[in-house]
Amino acid sequence: MDGNYSPVTEETIKDLAALIGEANVSIKEHELAGFAIDEMPLARSYPPRVIVRPPDSGAVSRVLAYASAKRIPVTPRGAGTGLSGGAIPIHGGILLSLEKMRRIIQIDERNFVAVVEPGVTLNELHQAAEACGLYYPLYPGEMTATIGGNVMTNAGGMNAVKYGVTRQYVLGVEAVIPGGEIIHSGGAYVKNTTGYDLTQLLIGSEGTLAVVTRITLKLTVKLAKREVLFVPFLDLQNAIDAVPDILRLKQTPVGIEVMDQDIVKIVEKFTEKELPYHQYQAFLMIIMEGDTEEEIYDYFARVETICRQHGAVEATVPGSERAKRRLFDAREKFYLAVKRFAPMEMIDTVVPRSEIARFAVQVKELSRKWGVPVFFYGHAGDGNVHLHPVQVDMSRAEFDGKLHPLMADIYRAAVALGGTISGEHGIGIDKKPFFGIGVEEPAIDIMRGIKRAFDPGNILNPGKIFDL
Amino acid sequence: MDGNYSPVTEETIKDLAALIGEANVSIKEHELAGFAIDEMPLARSYPPRVIVRPPDSGAVSRVLAYASAKRIPVTPRGAGTGLSGGAIPIHGGILLSLEKMRRIIQIDERNFVAVVEPGVTLNELHQAAEACGLYYPLYPGEMTATIGGNVMTNAGGMNAVKYGVTRQYVLGVEAVIPGGEIIHSGGAYVKNTTGYDLTQLLIGSEGTLAVVTRITLKLTVKLAKREVLFVPFLDLQNAIDAVPDILRLKQTPVGIEVMDQDIVKIVEKFTEKELPYHQYQAFLMIIMEGDTEEEIYDYFARVETICRQHGAVEATVPGSERAKRRLFDAREKFYLAVKRFAPMEMIDTVVPRSEIARFAVQVKELSRKWGVPVFFYGHAGDGNVHLHPVQVDMSRAEFDGKLHPLMADIYRAAVALGGTISGEHGIGIDKKPFFGIGVEEPAIDIMRGIKRAFDPGNILNPGKIFDL
Repeated sequence: MDGNYSPVTEETIKDLAALIGEANVSIKEHELAGFAIDEMPLARSYPPRVIVRPPDSGAVSRVLAYASAKRIPVTPRGAGTGLSGGAIPIHGGILLSLEKMRRIIQIDERNFVAVVEPGVTLNELHQAAEACGLYYPLYPGEMTATIGGNVMTNAGGMNAVKYGVTRQYVLGVEAVIPGGEIIHSGGAYVKNTTGYDLTQLLIGSEGTLAVVTRITLKLTVKLAKREVLFVPFLDLQNAIDAVPDILRLKQTPVGIEVMDQDIVKIVEKFTEKELPYHQYQAFLMIIMEGDTEEEIYDYFARVETICRQHGAVEATVPGSERAKRRLFDAREKFYLAVKRFAPMEMIDTVVPRSEIARFAVQVKELSRKWGVPVFFYGHAGDGNVHLHPVQVDMSRAEFDGKLHPLMADIYRAAVALGGTISGEHGIGIDKKPFFGIGVEEPAIDIMRGIKRAFDPGNILNPGKIFDL
Repeated sequence: MDGNYSPVTEETIKDLAALIGEANVSIKEHELAGFAIDEMPLARSYPPRVIVRPPDSGAVSRVLAYASAKRIPVTPRGAGTGLSGGAIPIHGGILLSLEKMRRIIQIDERNFVAVVEPGVTLNELHQAAEACGLYYPLYPGEMTATIGGNVMTNAGGMNAVKYGVTRQYVLGVEAVIPGGEIIHSGGAYVKNTTGYDLTQLLIGSEGTLAVVTRITLKLTVKLAKREVLFVPFLDLQNAIDAVPDILRLKQTPVGIEVMDQDIVKIVEKFTEKELPYHQYQAFLMIIMEGDTEEEIYDYFARVETICRQHGAVEATVPGSERAKRRLFDAREKFYLAVKRFAPMEMIDTVVPRSEIARFAVQVKELSRKWGVPVFFYGHAGDGNVHLHPVQVDMSRAEFDGKLHPLMADIYRAAVALGGTISGEHGIGIDKKPFFGIGVEEPAIDIMRGIKRAFDPGNILNPGKIFDL
C-alpha cells in the first residue's frame, strides 16, 4: 500500500491554490530543496513536489480531504528539527508546513493552561508562559522546535527526571484526520475517562495519524532558583554508577546529564570555549530547582558526598550566570559538534535508569566488537542515552557496512535490559529497520490497525515508523 | 455486530476447564449472581453464564483465543467497584475475573517502580510501596478497587490536583489482546517514542480493547506530613468561588474537596457521627502534604485568608488523627450514604476548574427546571464534580422519565463550559446514551476503528462506551 500514489500535477497545484489560496502554495525549487531533509544524520534528500502552508485548521482540513480523495501523500512538518527523518517527504507529494499556524491563542492563568497552534516554537511558548508568571517546564534542547513537532515526537529532554515528557503536558488537541474531519479531544482539565484517549494516542505518532492544529498544554509555576552542579570523574563508569544513588535522595533533581571526555573535547573545539576540569574522563551535570539557593546548595552538598564516594574528583557550581550559561550551551551543542566532527549516526535508546551503568559497559564492548567509536552522553537521570557511532579512520562504505549490525546489537542490548529503541526522537525512517527489535509483531499489527482506522488510504506521512 | 454471539453450552464449560483448569471455572448460581452488577446505581442485573478465574496471563490468553474463535462475549472484571456498569456482563457469556492474579511482582527501589498483576488492590499496593519507603500517591477513594480496574477507568480521586490520575503513573503493561496474543508496551522508564503508545491507549479503555495482565507503575516519595483544612461557608457558591484563588497560590495542594450541607447531613445520618460546623451551608476540605507541619500551616494560613475573603465562617485543622480520620471517612462515604438515602444516579462530569462555580449555578437551575434534587460535591480543585440526582417525593416512573433529559442537560452544560462527560468513572453502559454529547461523531468513528483493530470479533466487553 506504500506505493501507487497519484502524482502531483499542474492541476494538483491549481486545486491546492483554489483550496487554501495561492499565497499558501509553493513549488519554488529552493523551497522544495529546503524541505527535503530534516536534522536526521546521514539522510538522503527527498524534495516534496509542492509545499502548502495552511493558515488555519479549515485549510488543513481541505488539503487532507483533497489528498485523501486523490491519494497524494502528505508529510506534515514543524520546524524540521527532528532527528529521525519523520518530517522527510520520502514519497514526494505534498509537504504540509505548519509555519503559518503559530498563534498563542491563550495563556489561561486560572487553569494554568496554554492553548497554542502547532507552529509555535518552544522559545515562544516559554516566553509567553513566563510573561504570565507560569512555566512550561520541558526543555528538549532545541528551542526553535515547534510544539507540534514536540507533540508528535513526545519530546523529552533534560528536565524529564522531575517534569516528565511532553505526554504529561498535553491536555487536549484539535486535530484534522486524513479524511479532512476536524476532531477534538480533551481540554483544560486533567481528569478524563470519556472514550479512548485520542490525545494520548496522537502524542508520539510522528505525524502518521492526524495533523494537530491546536494544543492545550498544562503549565506549572516556576521555582525561583535553578542551579547546576558540575562533577568531574576519573572514569565514565564511576560517574554513571553515582546516578542511582543520587536519585535515591528524597529530593528530585530536574535532570542529571552525563558526558565523557571525548564529547567534551569535541564540543570545546566546536564552540572554541574551554570547559572546567576538562582534563578528567567523565562528568555529571546535576540540575536542580528550588525556592532558595540554600535549599539547592543543601541538596548539592548531599549529591557531592555521593559523587565523591563514587570517585568524583571535584564538584563545582558555576560562580556566575555566564559560567552557568556556558555549561548549558556546551551541553546543547553536543549534537552539532559531533555532526561537524565526523559522519555519524544518532541513537537515543532508553533503559531503566538503574541499568544505565550496565548498558554503558555493553555499548563499550559493542563499540570494540565492531571497531566503531561510539560517543556516549545523555540524560543519565532518566535512562535516556544518546549514542553517536562515528566514522573515524575508515571509509564511508566500511562505516555503512558496520553501522547497521552495530546499531541492531545496541538496540538488542537495551531491550534485553528492559529498555526500548527511542526515548524521544522517534522512529521516523532512521530507526524503522530496528523497530521490530523493540516492538513485537502482534503489537505492530495493532498499530497497523490503528493507522488504518485514521488513514485508510495511507496518505499521511506514509512509510514512517513501520510498514503497513 | 453486537448481537449474534454463540451461547455458552456445557461443551464451552468443559473446554474452558480443559484450557485453564476446572478449579478456575465456575457456574455456581450464587457466584454468577454476584457478578451480575457492579456499583453502578440503578443497574439491571445481567448474570454471566460462566466465570473464569485465570491464574496467569497464559490462561487469559487461552480463554480469549478460545472466545474469539467461538465468538463468545468476555467481560473482564477487577473488584467490581466501578460506577458505570463497565464490568457488567450485559451479553452474558464469560465473566473473566482477575481476582487470582494479585501478585506484587516487584517494588523496584532503584527505579521507583512497582510491577503488579491487575488483581492487586489499591490498599495492597499502597502498603507494599510504603513498606519500601515509596508512595503510590493516587487516592480514588475505594481502596478495595483493583489496580487493573483503576487502569481501565483511568481512576483519579482526591489527590489529583497535585498528583494527577492513573494515566500519569502507568509506565508499561503486559496485555492480552482478544485474539489471545500477549503484547508488551512500555516499561520501567518515562521516556518512550517507539511507535504508538498502546499503554496510554489501554488506560481508560474500560476493558474493551485488551486484558491487562501486568502493570508497571511509577512510584514517588511520600512527604512526611499530610494535613487537612476544613472550611465552612454560608453558601456553596462562596465556597466554590474561593477555589480558583486558592489554586493561584504557588504551592499546589494535594486536593480540594467541596460539599454542601445536604450531603453532610446525609453522611452524618449514614455514619451516625457528627461533622464539625455542620450548621453551615457548604464546606471546603483542602488537603496538603509537606515536609513539615510548619510548611503546611503556613500554607493553610494563606488559604484561610482567601477563604475568609470569600465569606468563610471558620477554618479548622482537625486536632487529632482521629478527627482527621473522621473527616476523610465521611468524605469517602458520600456515595454509600446517598445510595442508602434514596434511589439516585451518579454523574462525574468535569469542567475546567475555573468554570466550576458557573457550572454549579447551571446545575442548580437545571435541578429546578426538572424538579429533581441534585446533590453536588466533588473534587473542586480539578473541576471533577460528582452530582447525584435523587428520587425524592416522586414515583420511580416519574424520576426515570426526568432523569435522562436532566442528565443530557447537565452534560451539555459541562461540555459548553469546555468540560466532558466523565472525569474518572468511565462511560460503561450508564453514560453511553450521553457519549455523543461529549465526543463528536468522527472521533467516535476513529474509536470504532481502534476497537476493530484490537477486537475484530467484538468479543471483549461488547456494548460498552459506544456502539460499533
